[in-house]
Amino acid sequence: MSDSPSTLSRRQWLGRGGAALAAWSLGAWTSPAFAQPRPLPAYAAWKDAPSLIVHSNTTMETRRGAFGTSVITPSNQLYIRNNLPPPEAAILAQRDEWVLELVGVAQARSLRLAELKTLGLETVATVLQCSGNGRAFFPGKPSGTPWTVGAAGCVVWSGVPVRNVVKALGGVQDGMKFLTGTGGEKLPEGIDPKSLVVERSVPLAALDDALLAWEMNGEPLSLAHGGPLRLIVPGYQGVNNIKYIQRLAFTARETDARIMAHGYRLTPPGQQPDPAQPSVWEMGVKSWINSPQPAQEPLAAGPVLIHGVAFGGVRGVQQVEVSVDGGKQWKPAELVGPDLGRFAWRQFAFKTTLASGTHLLVCRATDTAGQVQPQARMDNTGGYNNTSWLDHGVKVQVA
Amino acid sequence: MSDSPSTLSRRQWLGRGGAALAAWSLGAWTSPAFAQPRPLPAYAAWKDAPSLIVHSNTTMETRRGAFGTSVITPSNQLYIRNNLPPPEAAILAQRDEWVLELVGVAQARSLRLAELKTLGLETVATVLQCSGNGRAFFPGKPSGTPWTVGAAGCVVWSGVPVRNVVKALGGVQDGMKFLTGTGGEKLPEGIDPKSLVVERSVPLAALDDALLAWEMNGEPLSLAHGGPLRLIVPGYQGVNNIKYIQRLAFTARETDARIMAHGYRLTPPGQQPDPAQPSVWEMGVKSWINSPQPAQEPLAAGPVLIHGVAFGGVRGVQQVEVSVDGGKQWKPAELVGPDLGRFAWRQFAFKTTLASGTHLLVCRATDTAGQVQPQARMDNTGGYNNTSWLDHGVKVQVA
Repeated sequence: MSDSPSTLSRRQWLGRGGAALAAWSLGAWTSPAFAQPRPLPAYAAWKDAPSLIVHSNTTMETRRGAFGTSVITPSNQLYIRNNLPPPEAAILAQRDEWVLELVGVAQARSLRLAELKTLGLETVATVLQCSGNGRAFFPGKPSGTPWTVGAAGCVVWSGVPVRNVVKALGGVQDGMKFLTGTGGEKLPEGIDPKSLVVERSVPLAALDDALLAWEMNGEPLSLAHGGPLRLIVPGYQGVNNIKYIQRLAFTARETDARIMAHGYRLTPPGQQPDPAQPSVWEMGVKSWINSPQPAQEPLAAGPVLIHGVAFGGVRGVQQVEVSVDGGKQWKPAELVGPDLGRFAWRQFAFKTTLASGTHLLVCRATDTAGQVQPQARMDNTGGYNNTSWLDHGVKVQVA
Repeated sequence: MSDSPSTLSRRQWLGRGGAALAAWSLGAWTSPAFAQPRPLPAYAAWKDAPSLIVHSNTTMETRRGAFGTSVITPSNQLYIRNNLPPPEAAILAQRDEWVLELVGVAQARSLRLAELKTLGLETVATVLQCSGNGRAFFPGKPSGTPWTVGAAGCVVWSGVPVRNVVKALGGVQDGMKFLTGTGGEKLPEGIDPKSLVVERSVPLAALDDALLAWEMNGEPLSLAHGGPLRLIVPGYQGVNNIKYIQRLAFTARETDARIMAHGYRLTPPGQQPDPAQPSVWEMGVKSWINSPQPAQEPLAAGPVLIHGVAFGGVRGVQQVEVSVDGGKQWKPAELVGPDLGRFAWRQFAFKTTLASGTHLLVCRATDTAGQVQPQARMDNTGGYNNTSWLDHGVKVQVA
């Protein structure tokens, strides 16, 4: 790779729309600029405040330096991104009484959570990631939360496979092409519900893996993360994993709710969001380094262990490579820890020795279909789906 | 199985030393008898109190009903069993400065945790279990904490493989047969340290899998669980996983510390503990049901999903069978969720329909070497290593 930022002139950088600059200024998001943090909102007061950057009452991300190496992200460190304020905590008082309406199946009806629990049990580890994760690295400062890497985690869900529920209700009706979930957030009166409701459609193929989950990381699902019941669509961006799910419909068309029709679209620069543009569905292959961290003090010269995470959306990760010179030379990293399945992330580790000076550490993952994490992000007005390995690089100083 | 307790007369039960009675009275340990629970000690104040039974300031177990189905036990629900009060929390102030002394290797010396972190990274999920887990089911009320099933959990550790450290120090000296770890608890003055020190030896073969761990479940290792550094011996009973490890020695003989020489021995009834008796090392194949729970109110007649956990010590689990009639007829359960490796436990699920009446639900696991979980515990004065499937049965009433 001859075009790594370390070889680019300032003019070349600016000519690239500031992309490389954005990568290099990454440290700002985890620096003492956040020395006076916002407090956690009440529904998330149980979270580990030092691990989180609180952007707002509905948006909190995990600090890059808080990510451990144990594959699973602890619940109290996991990011929060709610499109609406969460419902009253009272909905958790009698979890088993939560009602889910099933539509678009042969025998459409409502089921209590207690009944869902008798239809089967499946446990799956998935990467949960906001589609805007990495937005802070977009040069044009797209509107939305400036997430860096922390709007993601790898957690374990338990629940009933949607396919079991569908089977119990006689199967999907003919002609249905989407699985459409509706969240249970309370909507203000006097406003068109479609303009606010969290209702998303995913292709019917997602049915094979989708889960109705009541447990995360071994505990009953919290209000902050969608309890008592959440739709999990493994490998899909976070917004498709509907919290407080109250209606699951098999539909012939995508919902016309605003969050689907105009929100979360990969809109080319200069255009308006439109249902014809791709929606944020499957996640792309992606990786980043969690240690050393960009904002750390100068490292001592000598051996260093670089580690981070890599995932491939609906596919697993085949390989991770690391470069300590901004992408000129790549070497394979070691995948460490248990493999929790194709929807989970893998930890990778890379032992090296760094001499005095400045180094740009980058990594790139390859999924099991051979797709390689790209150098450049795909530009879009919403700042979605940033998988650029260059954007996610970490600059370190070695003393 | 014709000798299930449901077919035994009261006289037969008593003739068996109350073993079956103990199994049937299991509910007592999770019943309102604990309505006024002890508070959590300060060093464990971050734990989820409703999930735990606090036996003492150094012994807390997870309630059977608190175990979820997500394979990993959340840190705030994990049992605590400390042989001594934990050290001052100040030892966590500068984790990287923790010093471990390595002895019995070619180049014996001390290493800082920061240096250990450069020698490699491995992540492993293990069942952590107190060897006295299940002691409450022993008929003779052996002295020690009356654990039922909750002195166990499945957690993820990150650290450096001991073999990497040994390699960096030139290898194990000739003639060494044991790996001996010494805990960093502060000992009172004026008492023979050997009478109190937490120092245990395990066979050298454990070196292949042993880890020096600084992280559990994605977070820096807590004081309650042995932080900043703990020796993890996957597949071995909890006491061998030395907390606050300050010395790791390869030795020709087992340590003569009391906790090794006379403690945790499988002492036949009527005898005194003796170093010639087997120590509690590898865990045996074991399983139990977590839902439905013994203390639950009568279930509604109809479909029920039975689920629980199964593990095989250093081997994985090949199969779990469930019986709803106290062991007369067995059917295979389904293993669910990700397989986190041979040291982790597996979740199992079994769908059935229960008619009105009383049912004794039992399960038994088979490890990958074909070893089947036994019906009866092996009697010993300390109440260790209880793997009896009968003892771990769950009696339910169906309305």
